[in-house]
Amino acid sequence: MRISELSRRSGVSVATIKYYIREGLLPSGRPTAATQAEYGEQHLRRVRLVRALISVRGLSVHTTRAVLGTLSRELPETHRVLGLATGAIRLAEETVHGSHQQAEVDTLIHEMGWHIHQDAPARTTLTDILTTLHGLGVPLNRQTLFSYARLAEETAMVDLEQLEGVEDPLELAERTILLTTLLEPALLALRRLAQEHQSTGRHSR
Amino acid sequence: MRISELSRRSGVSVATIKYYIREGLLPSGRPTAATQAEYGEQHLRRVRLVRALISVRGLSVHTTRAVLGTLSRELPETHRVLGLATGAIRLAEETVHGSHQQAEVDTLIHEMGWHIHQDAPARTTLTDILTTLHGLGVPLNRQTLFSYARLAEETAMVDLEQLEGVEDPLELAERTILLTTLLEPALLALRRLAQEHQSTGRHSR
Repeated sequence: MRISELSRRSGVSVATIKYYIREGLLPSGRPTAATQAEYGEQHLRRVRLVRALISVRGLSVHTTRAVLGTLSRELPETHRVLGLATGAIRLAEETVHGSHQQAEVDTLIHEMGWHIHQDAPARTTLTDILTTLHGLGVPLNRQTLFSYARLAEETAMVDLEQLEGVEDPLELAERTILLTTLLEPALLALRRLAQEHQSTGRHSR
Repeated sequence: MRISELSRRSGVSVATIKYYIREGLLPSGRPTAATQAEYGEQHLRRVRLVRALISVRGLSVHTTRAVLGTLSRELPETHRVLGLATGAIRLAEETVHGSHQQAEVDTLIHEMGWHIHQDAPARTTLTDILTTLHGLGVPLNRQTLFSYARLAEETAMVDLEQLEGVEDPLELAERTILLTTLLEPALLALRRLAQEHQSTGRHSR
């Protein structure tokens, strides 16, 4: 398809598509004439993905490039794509890192029977948050942490069910990024709704 | 206590504490002399809370002020503090809002038996994300959405258990904000870890 059709089908303006190409977020089309190029379904999927990451998640071009870079390096190892692509999207800013909490996270991962790369960014995030809560005098106790981990495991099972049946490795990786990153705000929104409901029940009687 | 002790106990510099006061994030101390003021345990708790929101969650001063503003307006209605305080922290940027997805969210809340304010920001976030996923050709099906909602409900129960026994309404509201906002990155980190584990299991065999 021409760039005009790619624009119409993706709902992204031609100028923005050209910007994505210049910024290395979208591969160029196949040249068909001096000023024309041909785009395929892969381009359409990629334009939609980039738009979702930038407009919906509010990621910077820099972070989006990092997320997509993981995708091209690590195919077809979906589990690496998951850990690393989302790792580019930082969850927290803090750098306080307690060795006690690090051991706590290692123990959790071990006892949950999880196989996780040593360099998975989520390890660090979790350690830093536990360290901060400890420093604020409201540490998360072991039982609570394990409750959350079990719920996270069930959530991940629901996540991965949605990827079943997708055979093309590139499409699988793109779908993975989309569901992971776009569902994060949705899941937090559900938690906030459930909290409001629960809290009304407990505190308004 | 003097500001120097407040600084020592909170780990936040005197200059930063003065900045928090100027920005309206922390109430002034009780003046004891022309250049001295007395601070209490409430100040200490508040300094730690502000620091966590800004440094760990990476919130702007503006957003932090909005979160804390809710706290002073809505005491002691914890369920309002929950919904509104976290509502000030935007989860997503998108403004695409589908009426079909709006109805889907209303149905979900109704069928879950949740009592939620009509103006809860999380309603809009959820609607917008569902609209976006639909537009990207990867809609969330009804069964999946309900699975996530049930897991969110269980998560909220674990959240609120941690607030039990806190009697002082201000402390309760502060603790609520802290646990809600600081646990968000921790829960997402746990989900990413669980995804990596699950994905390794499914795709590497």
